[in-house]
Amino acid sequence: MAQSISDRRDVQFVLNEQLTIGDLCKGIYADLNTKTFDLLMNEARNLAVKELLPILKECDEEGCKFDNGKVITPEGFKRAWKLFCEGEWLTVADDMEVGGQGMPQVLAVASLELFAGANMAFSIYPMLAHGAGKLVELYGTDKQKELFLGKMYSGEWGGTMCLTEPEAGSDVGALTTTAKDNGDGTYSISGTKIFISAGEQDLTENIIHPVLARIEGSPPGTAGISIFLVPKIWVNDDGSLGEDNDVVCDRIEHKMGIHASATCQLTFGSKGKCRGMLLGEVNKGMRIMFHMMNEERLNVGVQALGAASASYLLALDYARQRIQGKNLLAGKDAPGVPIIQHPDVRRMLIKMKAYVEGLRSLNYYTGVCMDRARIAENDEEKAYWQSFVDILTPVCKGYSTERGWEVTVDGIQVYGGYGYTTEYPMEQIARDCKITTIYEGTTGIQAMDLLGRKIPMKDGKVFMALLGEIKKTVAEAKGIAGLEELAAKVDAAADKLAETAQALAKAARSPKVMTAFANATPFLDSMGDVLLGWMHLWRAAVSAPKLEKAVGGKTGEDRAKAVASNKDAAFYDGQIQTAKYFINVILTTTLGRMDSIRLLEDAPVEMADAGFGG
Amino acid sequence: MAQSISDRRDVQFVLNEQLTIGDLCKGIYADLNTKTFDLLMNEARNLAVKELLPILKECDEEGCKFDNGKVITPEGFKRAWKLFCEGEWLTVADDMEVGGQGMPQVLAVASLELFAGANMAFSIYPMLAHGAGKLVELYGTDKQKELFLGKMYSGEWGGTMCLTEPEAGSDVGALTTTAKDNGDGTYSISGTKIFISAGEQDLTENIIHPVLARIEGSPPGTAGISIFLVPKIWVNDDGSLGEDNDVVCDRIEHKMGIHASATCQLTFGSKGKCRGMLLGEVNKGMRIMFHMMNEERLNVGVQALGAASASYLLALDYARQRIQGKNLLAGKDAPGVPIIQHPDVRRMLIKMKAYVEGLRSLNYYTGVCMDRARIAENDEEKAYWQSFVDILTPVCKGYSTERGWEVTVDGIQVYGGYGYTTEYPMEQIARDCKITTIYEGTTGIQAMDLLGRKIPMKDGKVFMALLGEIKKTVAEAKGIAGLEELAAKVDAAADKLAETAQALAKAARSPKVMTAFANATPFLDSMGDVLLGWMHLWRAAVSAPKLEKAVGGKTGEDRAKAVASNKDAAFYDGQIQTAKYFINVILTTTLGRMDSIRLLEDAPVEMADAGFGG
Repeated sequence: MAQSISDRRDVQFVLNEQLTIGDLCKGIYADLNTKTFDLLMNEARNLAVKELLPILKECDEEGCKFDNGKVITPEGFKRAWKLFCEGEWLTVADDMEVGGQGMPQVLAVASLELFAGANMAFSIYPMLAHGAGKLVELYGTDKQKELFLGKMYSGEWGGTMCLTEPEAGSDVGALTTTAKDNGDGTYSISGTKIFISAGEQDLTENIIHPVLARIEGSPPGTAGISIFLVPKIWVNDDGSLGEDNDVVCDRIEHKMGIHASATCQLTFGSKGKCRGMLLGEVNKGMRIMFHMMNEERLNVGVQALGAASASYLLALDYARQRIQGKNLLAGKDAPGVPIIQHPDVRRMLIKMKAYVEGLRSLNYYTGVCMDRARIAENDEEKAYWQSFVDILTPVCKGYSTERGWEVTVDGIQVYGGYGYTTEYPMEQIARDCKITTIYEGTTGIQAMDLLGRKIPMKDGKVFMALLGEIKKTVAEAKGIAGLEELAAKVDAAADKLAETAQALAKAARSPKVMTAFANATPFLDSMGDVLLGWMHLWRAAVSAPKLEKAVGGKTGEDRAKAVASNKDAAFYDGQIQTAKYFINVILTTTLGRMDSIRLLEDAPVEMADAGFGG
Repeated sequence: MAQSISDRRDVQFVLNEQLTIGDLCKGIYADLNTKTFDLLMNEARNLAVKELLPILKECDEEGCKFDNGKVITPEGFKRAWKLFCEGEWLTVADDMEVGGQGMPQVLAVASLELFAGANMAFSIYPMLAHGAGKLVELYGTDKQKELFLGKMYSGEWGGTMCLTEPEAGSDVGALTTTAKDNGDGTYSISGTKIFISAGEQDLTENIIHPVLARIEGSPPGTAGISIFLVPKIWVNDDGSLGEDNDVVCDRIEHKMGIHASATCQLTFGSKGKCRGMLLGEVNKGMRIMFHMMNEERLNVGVQALGAASASYLLALDYARQRIQGKNLLAGKDAPGVPIIQHPDVRRMLIKMKAYVEGLRSLNYYTGVCMDRARIAENDEEKAYWQSFVDILTPVCKGYSTERGWEVTVDGIQVYGGYGYTTEYPMEQIARDCKITTIYEGTTGIQAMDLLGRKIPMKDGKVFMALLGEIKKTVAEAKGIAGLEELAAKVDAAADKLAETAQALAKAARSPKVMTAFANATPFLDSMGDVLLGWMHLWRAAVSAPKLEKAVGGKTGEDRAKAVASNKDAAFYDGQIQTAKYFINVILTTTLGRMDSIRLLEDAPVEMADAGFGG
């Protein structure tokens, strides 16, 4: 039977052969081993394939219902949530001291790929529950941890992330929700938040809302924002549930996709009875919330990877089954062939494969960076890997979601007319995936973060260190027969990226600053492409020697036969072909895009507002 | 009030200033003038804005209902159809002798842009009614014309296009519908067709289905296909309606978008009582149907243009209204600004504008080519312009729909989270638009047509003649102050396109033929980009002298003030800025893509099927 969601062999390849996660088994991971990791991934796949995927379509059709303040999630979610919590997936990579499974972060990434690929809408609930719990773990008082953390990490209670307001979307500093000190350790919260995922649901008995609000008298803008834990139902000092806490869900949004994810408008304190507890220090709310935001940004990139991967495997399977037309080289009386034989379909499939696998490597790599920071033996090492996480976060979010979305659109196209019907899952996967380029900060926001904050980190040294990692792979690949040219191309692309970043950084300090930032998104795209070129070169460098071993020096047709008949050889050859495709086709186009960025064309900025027409 | 659907000023610019359609007023158009054209465009806009646009959302929500073989279209369609037919929009560009309005084809294009931009799903019904009628006009016997044509061109009866079958999608030659000669001038038709737009509906009292079928004993493949006129209700010899003709709608598809367009599965002759009349000669069905297909392919490109244009104007208006964040250059206490001031939003808007306007010029130009063929004074001239229509058809279809779709996706992104909700029209416009890359032949099919059939037309002379037209504009623009560099870049891009086409043509005649065709879609994309570069250069060449006149030699801030305060100056300056953006940013990236094509990377073809994984 065809595989679904994500290619098991490729996942294993990235974890064990490319990123060699066995090397992580030291420090806090000293008691773990790759066998445990394999078992965990099998369990994740089982849950995804057997429980989350079968309810995908009903999630779209049933969606969430709204009834007088209550949200009814799809029927299948109750069982799915229960199993998800029982499997302790909420805390797969959290420390055992706080009730976690203590696994490496990279496995949280790999399992989220499966969960989101199986059911994007479902995956949002645990993402938020965990993220909110993490804030309590990191910033809560002992009392707050005692009251909330166990219940949140076990999934008995849910969580959210309450930033956005009607007039303060991406501009969080403009929020108007207020908090008034009651003098008893609580604050009265008053305001309205919109677009709150999982803001109300019927999966958990309580929901803990981290809410950004301004304490009366605090300064305007982000410097005056504090964060509060606001339970849906008040939690008494002994941990028992108290009164309803005056948090009302006024409406849910009707959306293009993720119909089963409740996107809520929440009003806090309309009866003056909503209380919250300050989390962390006064006026430090943004910094605290950013921790959750960064976690979710990485998660959202992985969600898009999951959707893209699911779409790819479905398209691949369809292309192998669907008989249409004749082979281009065959006579007109030839029999019909599966559409995978048509060159344009192959082009779509290899493009989808190249993005999916490249994004998998990139997102898993970022997970490994987090793990390396966790097991680092000294602060310097820790800072080194953490800085990679910081610079990669906007790329993982912005680039993975844009390219992941494109893959899901290609998936529709491979199916042709059927892809446009709701009979097949392709259009739903795409509709669900589209949200990933928007929530947790649009692509434009990620691009501004990358260019404005992350590239300049430590005077550009973090960016240069990352390029240094690319150069290591380039150096290795240059010594592998058949990869010399690909290595040289990735090398040149990395150099051009550095040049482009320098040109933009210089422009950003000049009167052309607006033009520099009008190039932020193309730069994000280019950096993502170069990183994926690196990942594919790395994959090829790992695969080439193994392929040679598997085909035992054969050439020409004998080699082709060996590749076609040996599963491992086919896989490794597929890695090298995909690297050739990505580096020669995609990355060559990227060189053109980087040329265009360095022209620093002013037109987007120079055009008079009236010149846009309308 | 903000404009909707398409920018009136830009439409007028293309028609009157760029393409100078007044020059068409000779031959069959001798009695017309630009004033008539303006009146016609005003009427089209009225119908689109006042009737079709207001029912857009209900079309999505109500959709088509299916009830025991009947299709119920949205309530609003009855009035819309009536007004559409009363306005004689079905036959706006048909000869007056057959009941048409006798207007130039370019105005049929420009009005379809408005209708499709207002309501994509609605626009499908008249497209098919007209296309089917056109087949009767061109290939029908006098009797067939007498029976059908008046009713079809007036919109009393509808039409369809019955090609696709469950096992014969893009591979029409594999169809299994049969026709048996009854010896009385009729044939018994038997078979099932799927994905039949407007296959059943409640707008017209009858529907005439052009149906591809194989007469018993005809050869296999496309060479044995004939085409039949199969009425839903039989039409008696005196023109009166007879019996139900055994054409049954079994189901309608549920789709990602165009919910109000009935996509039907039709079974012909399940009771053995379905009759059709042969249209044209036996076994010439494909050639005849291709006439309709080409008409619809051009229409579909225009549909995508309409959707893109509507999305752009909505996004532009939103960006001018929506206050979020501060100007990048302002201090942190500065007030919020409309998001059009943010560089990344400007980038999205200018990109959308550049594609919309470029596509408008390209699609209108193709309409003008049809008109020039119609008014040609000799066969050679006629053939010259007709050959442009032939080579441009797959580009207008394939490229307009892909880029149009991308624009509608950008439109969602400009709206941010709101774009993803059904509260705003952005996500519907995108969902509706997605079908355009699929129906009437997917993008891949268009690309194969372009590379395999159209580029080689007359040994490449048509392609070279088209490049010759580009060179004329380049030569003119090189003489205009400020445009020299842009002209040189378009020139170089056109040369590179020629080089790329030659490389692919050579590869197509070599063992690398599969690799050549794996590059068909990137070539289509590149050719579209170069054509749009041409169109933008042309626009700039028309605008530059008019801008100079409007700003009267002013420079620096005085000039900027003059541009901002003078509507015409703002428009012409906007043209030049957009040309700079498209040629420097988009076209520079395209150079990279053309480089990548010329590498003729074999990986998509060489990869073993097993190498794709799954």
